Amino acid sequence: MYKNCDFIQNINDELWLTEKEGENLTLSYRLKEIIYEENSPIQHILIVDSYDFGRMLVLDGIVQTTEKDGFVYNEMICHIPLSLHPNAKNVLIIGGGDCGVLKELSKYPSLNEIHMVEIDKSVVEASLKYLKGVSGGKIDKKVTLFFEDGIKFIQDKKGYYDVIIIDSSDPLGQAEALFEKDFYKSVYEALKPDGIMSCQSESPIYYSDVLKNSYDSIKELFPLVKLYSATIPTYPGSFWTFTIGSKKYNTVARDDFSLDTKYVNKNIINTCFNNAEFIENLINS
Amino acid sequence: MYKNCDFIQNINDELWLTEKEGENLTLSYRLKEIIYEENSPIQHILIVDSYDFGRMLVLDGIVQTTEKDGFVYNEMICHIPLSLHPNAKNVLIIGGGDCGVLKELSKYPSLNEIHMVEIDKSVVEASLKYLKGVSGGKIDKKVTLFFEDGIKFIQDKKGYYDVIIIDSSDPLGQAEALFEKDFYKSVYEALKPDGIMSCQSESPIYYSDVLKNSYDSIKELFPLVKLYSATIPTYPGSFWTFTIGSKKYNTVARDDFSLDTKYVNKNIINTCFNNAEFIENLINS
Repeated sequence: MYKNCDFIQNINDELWLTEKEGENLTLSYRLKEIIYEENSPIQHILIVDSYDFGRMLVLDGIVQTTEKDGFVYNEMICHIPLSLHPNAKNVLIIGGGDCGVLKELSKYPSLNEIHMVEIDKSVVEASLKYLKGVSGGKIDKKVTLFFEDGIKFIQDKKGYYDVIIIDSSDPLGQAEALFEKDFYKSVYEALKPDGIMSCQSESPIYYSDVLKNSYDSIKELFPLVKLYSATIPTYPGSFWTFTIGSKKYNTVARDDFSLDTKYVNKNIINTCFNNAEFIENLINS
Repeated sequence: MYKNCDFIQNINDELWLTEKEGENLTLSYRLKEIIYEENSPIQHILIVDSYDFGRMLVLDGIVQTTEKDGFVYNEMICHIPLSLHPNAKNVLIIGGGDCGVLKELSKYPSLNEIHMVEIDKSVVEASLKYLKGVSGGKIDKKVTLFFEDGIKFIQDKKGYYDVIIIDSSDPLGQAEALFEKDFYKSVYEALKPDGIMSCQSESPIYYSDVLKNSYDSIKELFPLVKLYSATIPTYPGSFWTFTIGSKKYNTVARDDFSLDTKYVNKNIINTCFNNAEFIENLINS
């Protein structure tokens, strides 16, 4: 099955997945087995079980999330904007096919409506079936899934959402447009007058130009912009950032945060916008 | 020259260094060139120039520090204990051969005496000559270097130091004893009655047992123990922790912090002890 992927190799009877992080760095994970493989109309989908990171979702050869460290990303991109907004009811996820953000959103009984627009239905189906450690294996009743292009989807929405979470892959190929100002403008317009967006804004070490462009674009549109970071071992450089654009709310102070989480807690929420000096210098330059 | 290292390979005219992170993960860095190689009586020393991380110090095939991300580790292991202590004069580094911590300590004009005890003189000499991006290339006048076993060295010192920084490699081979309670006890006794120690306490993902043992040992000895973390891309799992044992001082509040740094700033100092939930659960279990 895995003979179709040049990034999977059998070396001395051991199965290894080798991921290229740019031209000058590779990460190789020893695998227990290949769980699922599919060539969807959009991309090559692989779910593998690795020794060090448990099951992993791999799209076109790039590790997207793992059972071992996926919680860091999913909790940080979700609970920080939800903590900033005092009364979110309607939330949209753009991307998010592994359903990890959906799982985090299902922890909020106060939400009325959760929409997710994901271009590749196959990723959602495979993640729900074979990646339950990330997805939870099921979808909340409040959730409506839209399998279409997020960029087109958002253009028809005006003033509808309290929070929009942009859970995109790296800015390569089709995902590139999800880091551009035109797209953030559509997101701005789809939010209510006190709405908040969050997005992953890449590594300050590997993709500092992407981070900076994304931050600057959001800053031009939203009156309030904030950046925060977390360590995600399976992402290149591991140092990962998230950016928030907010129309009104500026302060997180959630001493009552009590959701069942593995990374985020009230101290993380209250202090996450304190960035390392080189990141502050980058976004303020 | 590099033919002696099985972890350096020439693949299609490209030079690659492959580092094993345990049995199930490898990281491969593309290199520009080998800068320096030596078999010292202690270990195999290699300094290489890599495309993504600049010059790197590699001991027995393990990347110890790089020009690109070494500042995170060196600033965090140094400036947090120095911020906690209101009036440090005598500081000891145990290990620290790459001289990165020495460079950070040289930023404090208020210090009287800086001792460093490092078992391998060759690492210090190579780092000062070929790894100036980390070491700074020179040593402060206040510094006295001792090239001997840190464990024996510390046993003769009683109540002498304000701050002791344990800058060790991973707990393998000779460095293993630097994570044991007997050693922390010697460190405790070498400190003044209001002294503070800091050490690297490994990854909460890859070496959670080492972290936990180290934390518990320090907690049994010192009335105050604190853990903090940072992202270090070239360390396995990238999520790295540091532990502080303090005899007296408990609060960092350094709104006057103004040293020339790339990672640490006053906000990082004031909030660094807020750990992710899974780390809090680990150290409080």
